[in-house]
Amino acid sequence: MKPINIQEKFTKFSKNWHPHQVATVDDMQVILAKLKGEFVWHSHDEEDELFQVIKGTLHMQFRDRTEIVNAGEFIVVPKGVEHNPCTLNDEEVHVLLFEKLNTAHTGNVQHERTQTEYPKI
Amino acid sequence: MKPINIQEKFTKFSKNWHPHQVATVDDMQVILAKLKGEFVWHSHDEEDELFQVIKGTLHMQFRDRTEIVNAGEFIVVPKGVEHNPCTLNDEEVHVLLFEKLNTAHTGNVQHERTQTEYPKI
Repeated sequence: MKPINIQEKFTKFSKNWHPHQVATVDDMQVILAKLKGEFVWHSHDEEDELFQVIKGTLHMQFRDRTEIVNAGEFIVVPKGVEHNPCTLNDEEVHVLLFEKLNTAHTGNVQHERTQTEYPKI
Repeated sequence: MKPINIQEKFTKFSKNWHPHQVATVDDMQVILAKLKGEFVWHSHDEEDELFQVIKGTLHMQFRDRTEIVNAGEFIVVPKGVEHNPCTLNDEEVHVLLFEKLNTAHTGNVQHERTQTEYPKI
């Protein structure tokens, strides 16, 4: 029940595509991640996923288009929709995600980047 | 599934203590509100509530203390905990809230400010 400073939490880890949990809200979690390059095409059968951009420009690829999400903006990816977040020109983009506690960040795909548990910071 | 610009959404309403829904994530909602002055002491029996400060300084009063939440920070108020958001010196503070779709913003208290439905913007 203490205020959480988002920028300060981002100083606590450096690895890209490595989500860290900073809070829970009922059965949802707030996680932070540093994204760089391209992730993995995947979807979440049962969970929506909110990406709020804190720093940089996120390119959220869908199969039919790409949405550009700038700092100060967010996008909700609905359940079942294939997506693949990426960044351009080697930019490291900082995002805050809001999603169910049991959401796997690679969704229905098992990948070398898949983490089954997120460190708490 | 379009990006949502938080600042731009704040231009769409002016009334204080009047939440507007900008997105849903599963059974949760993202709402924006402009706070000024003192709200109402209340709690939510079943729902946690996240307040992310976009502009200004929020003073979140609890019965035993006040937490100061600045822009770029957020605080989660756990279910069952009495709280009363307020701002000082007539400052209008802009907040983004994550909470269950059925959360009443005045919680267990019926007040002249109580809204039962939030406009969608």
